[in-house]
Amino acid sequence: MPQIKRFGVSLEKELSEKFEALMVRKGYKNRSEAIRDLIRGDLVKKEWARGREVAGVVTLVYDHHKRELVSHLTDIQHEFHHLIISTQHIHLDHDNCLEVIITKGKPDKVQALAERLRSTKGVKYGLLNMATTGKGLG
Amino acid sequence: MPQIKRFGVSLEKELSEKFEALMVRKGYKNRSEAIRDLIRGDLVKKEWARGREVAGVVTLVYDHHKRELVSHLTDIQHEFHHLIISTQHIHLDHDNCLEVIITKGKPDKVQALAERLRSTKGVKYGLLNMATTGKGLG
Amino acid sequence: MPQIKRFGVSLEKELSEKFEALMVRKGYKNRSEAIRDLIRGDLVKKEWARGREVAGVVTLVYDHHKRELVSHLTDIQHEFHHLIISTQHIHLDHDNCLEVIITKGKPDKVQALAERLRSTKGVKYGLLNMATTGKGLG
Amino acid sequence: MPQIKRFGVSLEKELSEKFEALMVRKGYKNRSEAIRDLIRGDLVKKEWARGREVAGVVTLVYDHHKRELVSHLTDIQHEFHHLIISTQHIHLDHDNCLEVIITKGKPDKVQALAERLRSTKGVKYGLLNMATTGKGLG
Repeated sequence: MPQIKRFGVSLEKELSEKFEALMVRKGYKNRSEAIRDLIRGDLVKKEWARGREVAGVVTLVYDHHKRELVSHLTDIQHEFHHLIISTQHIHLDHDNCLEVIITKGKPDKVQALAERLRSTKGVKYGLLNMATTGKGLG
Repeated sequence: MPQIKRFGVSLEKELSEKFEALMVRKGYKNRSEAIRDLIRGDLVKKEWARGREVAGVVTLVYDHHKRELVSHLTDIQHEFHHLIISTQHIHLDHDNCLEVIITKGKPDKVQALAERLRSTKGVKYGLLNMATTGKGLG
Repeated sequence: MPQIKRFGVSLEKELSEKFEALMVRKGYKNRSEAIRDLIRGDLVKKEWARGREVAGVVTLVYDHHKRELVSHLTDIQHEFHHLIISTQHIHLDHDNCLEVIITKGKPDKVQALAERLRSTKGVKYGLLNMATTGKGLG
Repeated sequence: MPQIKRFGVSLEKELSEKFEALMVRKGYKNRSEAIRDLIRGDLVKKEWARGREVAGVVTLVYDHHKRELVSHLTDIQHEFHHLIISTQHIHLDHDNCLEVIITKGKPDKVQALAERLRSTKGVKYGLLNMATTGKGLG
């Protein structure tokens, strides 16, 4: 069982009411969980800024008909294979593919991989979601 | 005196320690104030999404030597004068000016003004900071 | 063969040099591809603002030991099954799982799903990557 | 007269049409200016990441009735006076003030100032807009 730390928070009435309305709309069942998520969101940004090991999710959208694009993307992924945990591929329609590449490593390496993939000719969209390995986020 | 609402928050020990370390680094004196700021940041995003009256701060950087640029920017500001509270102008160096335009109004109007200013030929940088009128953020 | 439209762009020398240095660092082979990516990034933001059909990638990190968490997340995903294309699950370490849920639909529905998943007790991190179906981004 | 560099860009027809529609909606008069703004936006992000001298605009919203808040904020600004170019103060309503602080310096120093101001008890909203000194952005 993890140790739990409790503390009190005071909010002015109007701020408190607005917070609860937003919380309910987002689907939270209690204030503690909503506040934990705000805190964790802030901490994950710091993990990236400080170079801790992170998890990153790269999303690519591309047209698989583009000449040699699929093999280029595969080559790059092999070059960075130590960072990549897995890849998932979706056929969005006749032309467009969406690929999700789950990575773990140092932020600068993960970012370099994401930029290499995104800059490949024929990739229409590329974004790196800066996630977390979850360690110590309780 | 505003009414104050108090409630308890529980965090697992490790999350709590990380939160306090980050809080201290940012200069917060107590947990309540740090949590109020996280909550308010989330609420301000919603004010913009929901079309409530907001305050917006437009920052422009431009070269005042560009032909007729200053008069174009002034014309646009007059066209939107009902949105603009004040304008401040800084001479960054021999060529570059930084101008800050403080606005209040509906989000879509404030955004349209920011895009018009930013798209003016000769403006090197333009950004809208989505702030708040502060109402109800206690 | 898609029809190609060509046009000229003029940049001042110093801006042009900085652009090329950044482009090379990111791995672009030519200016056109770098500029196409900047344009597409801007267009994808508009797809989300205007309610067009989009693709969204939801990333969750959670501790699978938390009581009933996995079954809650599965229930929510079934409730929104018409939005979800596929789900991929990674075991980051003994406790932490990373789950990627690929969705397609209207932006407000995709955002509601992401908020429901993120607000579930025990989810440590949740983020929606606002991607695209790739249609018309040539 | 600055030297101008020209080059051609090729876009597939559908992408080109979408780009022009968005460009017109934002108020651009020609493609070159729209593309220069996309490039500069990308370069300004890099200035911050690389620690070059930047301009930063800090926006604060606070209730001036809060005990000693105004004098605390003034004290902090004096402590960082070498970073601050000017401050502008707006009375939004009976209670709320909006203050804009224009700064120039290294990114980490500007960020530290923004966090100190934002974390002061009674400040409802604080945001740092990461702008530029405009140097070399032609």
